[in-house]
Amino acid sequence: MQEKADKTAGKPLAAVMAELGEAARAAAWVLATTDTATKNAALRAGAAALRRSAEDILAANARDVAAAEEQGRPKAAIDRLRLDKKRIEGIASALEDIVALDDPVGTVIAEWTRPNGLDIQRVRTPIGVIGIIFESRPNVTADAGALCLKSGNAAILRPGSDSIHSSRAIHACLLEGLRAAGLPEAAIQIVPTTDREAVGHMLRGLGGNIDVIVPRGGKSLVERVQTDARVPVFAHLEGICHVYVDKAAKLDMAREVVVNAKMRRPGICGAAETLLVDRACPSDYLPALIDALIGAGCEVRGDDSAQRADARVRPASEEDWRTEYLDAIISVKVVDGVEGALAHIAHYSSHHTEAILTEDAVAAQVFLNGVDSAIVLWNASTQFADGGEFGMGAEIGIATGKMHARGPIGVEQLTSFKYVVRGSGQTRPK
Amino acid sequence: MQEKADKTAGKPLAAVMAELGEAARAAAWVLATTDTATKNAALRAGAAALRRSAEDILAANARDVAAAEEQGRPKAAIDRLRLDKKRIEGIASALEDIVALDDPVGTVIAEWTRPNGLDIQRVRTPIGVIGIIFESRPNVTADAGALCLKSGNAAILRPGSDSIHSSRAIHACLLEGLRAAGLPEAAIQIVPTTDREAVGHMLRGLGGNIDVIVPRGGKSLVERVQTDARVPVFAHLEGICHVYVDKAAKLDMAREVVVNAKMRRPGICGAAETLLVDRACPSDYLPALIDALIGAGCEVRGDDSAQRADARVRPASEEDWRTEYLDAIISVKVVDGVEGALAHIAHYSSHHTEAILTEDAVAAQVFLNGVDSAIVLWNASTQFADGGEFGMGAEIGIATGKMHARGPIGVEQLTSFKYVVRGSGQTRPK
Repeated sequence: MQEKADKTAGKPLAAVMAELGEAARAAAWVLATTDTATKNAALRAGAAALRRSAEDILAANARDVAAAEEQGRPKAAIDRLRLDKKRIEGIASALEDIVALDDPVGTVIAEWTRPNGLDIQRVRTPIGVIGIIFESRPNVTADAGALCLKSGNAAILRPGSDSIHSSRAIHACLLEGLRAAGLPEAAIQIVPTTDREAVGHMLRGLGGNIDVIVPRGGKSLVERVQTDARVPVFAHLEGICHVYVDKAAKLDMAREVVVNAKMRRPGICGAAETLLVDRACPSDYLPALIDALIGAGCEVRGDDSAQRADARVRPASEEDWRTEYLDAIISVKVVDGVEGALAHIAHYSSHHTEAILTEDAVAAQVFLNGVDSAIVLWNASTQFADGGEFGMGAEIGIATGKMHARGPIGVEQLTSFKYVVRGSGQTRPK
Repeated sequence: MQEKADKTAGKPLAAVMAELGEAARAAAWVLATTDTATKNAALRAGAAALRRSAEDILAANARDVAAAEEQGRPKAAIDRLRLDKKRIEGIASALEDIVALDDPVGTVIAEWTRPNGLDIQRVRTPIGVIGIIFESRPNVTADAGALCLKSGNAAILRPGSDSIHSSRAIHACLLEGLRAAGLPEAAIQIVPTTDREAVGHMLRGLGGNIDVIVPRGGKSLVERVQTDARVPVFAHLEGICHVYVDKAAKLDMAREVVVNAKMRRPGICGAAETLLVDRACPSDYLPALIDALIGAGCEVRGDDSAQRADARVRPASEEDWRTEYLDAIISVKVVDGVEGALAHIAHYSSHHTEAILTEDAVAAQVFLNGVDSAIVLWNASTQFADGGEFGMGAEIGIATGKMHARGPIGVEQLTSFKYVVRGSGQTRPK
């Protein structure tokens, strides 16, 4: 399989990767001034090619699935990998959703005029070249490629070896789209080998030809990327999200939101991992919240107060406060009001998403101001941490860093900007 | 001198630097929710302390100047270092200018409501901890410290050993200001040693306790920082700025703007280094532009056409197109229209600032769209590349990177943002 996965024709990897970078930069130059209609035409033609090529994609996918089964990969991983007609239709229609998004490039973010008559605009521009390193979900090939194209960036995709044949089959459809629209094929490239060293080359930035890296996958992938990358990274390592129930919360709302925040999909990054309950809450709150969680099928681990409130609660260890379970397990702790919640969150949060439940607007504002996370919610579930739910359209991921992109990373977050200054011959006085 | 410059009391440098980082992070936590009035009170009290302490600052500065003279430093470096009463007044009044700036923290950048009633705001927040590494200008201590404070960030300042005594005397005044306003002294810290290894610690991020580094100084400093930093850097390595005179330019305007762009202050990063002249310009343009430059005291190096246009033009080598002279020297090249100018700029520009001179709006738009630099100007001098001239207030520098900050870095560019979401108990449906 390694042999078939390698399309470098014996060329040294460093040369292969350098060429990818140079081709991407040249394509980015073209894309920076490509109009919206042309980019959309490429996406539409790509969607049509995906639908037309469904059988080829399924055949390629069957090879990946067979290899994964042979290697005894876990069932969940094989599920993420497996495509069917419905999933291919989903991938195609996701491209059309990206067509429908506003093109961020050229948008005037701010404009003002100086006393000397200079007109200054801050205008969105593409970033340049985005490197995407992902694992087993083959749909990332289409989603990430399309989001980069729409935002005027060239993409270099590095799929996991698990999904290499599926990803290549999908990539072939994107290339059909690019050709149909007269755009350079290097606008969306795929690394032509599964050699793991290719990732190292990307993390070093291909000689200045990758501007930002977006890793999509599990914690160990993101950790490696964040540790080794010499270029900026848009990512979150984990989502240790907290829900704080204040003494002024409504119990019914708190119960519903807490159960939703944990149990709607326990495996997503916006799922709650720790419930903090105000010590000053009415005495029925803590047992009611724990009972609701257990009733919904959640394992509860808690501090002494939580254990006293319900005999089914197992003791939480220090490790529990630091754990993203991504499963039907939650840790529960009693804290001293908003300040206690803020102190716990400052210590244990992964700066992703936190929520407060309260009817007290002052307490809410203290929490919203005090939490240093990408997303803070008042009286709503942490599971809303998602570009689509924010009305930003498709996202390439969620970032917890504070530089450039924070929170959902959609087409707008894949842009930079420049200052465009229009004058009438102004010179600067001494 | 090394002995007196070291205030680490024999503690290992790694421990000293780690403590600085932890103290900065704790101070940043306080600053993030400090109101504007308190931050401004600290700046005003700092300005008052600077005026009161002028004699002490001058005495400290005299030690730095004497050391520099003893080491035989160049006159320009000693000039940058030397303070007098007027310069101290300038430093104090610069703090008051920063008081007058709007506080960016808490500003709602965008707000929208989702169909399910969730209200989403994008709100400016401080970044956290900013590390500033600078060389001989002691005023950077006050400027950078004050800009960080105003934007709610903690600052870790690392002055060059040249200006260490002056910087410490100025820093003492900022501390007076912080104390007067009841703010933590660790809000603005100065590295207590001139040991060059301290810079290495800062570039590695002090264990996650520096969020961004801003280098202020010459090319070799910026180069080291950009190469070695493991945290984001806001900087420009150099400003190889181009002015393109299009065939549809007005000669009088072109002459004035070109001379200003090069000669107003040849040593600033926004000074023009290369003049590109459209081959289709009327035949009197090129000689007139060269004559005006030479008449203003500029040395001109040019391609064959430029040499033919004026016998005083020396031949330009390949190296000239890559050189930021920072001096009264310019390189001149004839190019084929806007496309020729864009190609030259794409190859040689440092992505700082470029200008087009033309009366042709279409040509201007092609240039403004096609140039990939922080600042692009139409019919105006490149010397306007400056936060103050942009109406953004004081700047800590100019960035040519595309991530987060690009162009002048003022208080707004020293902020990040978070999403604040207000609901009424919304849960996310399956």
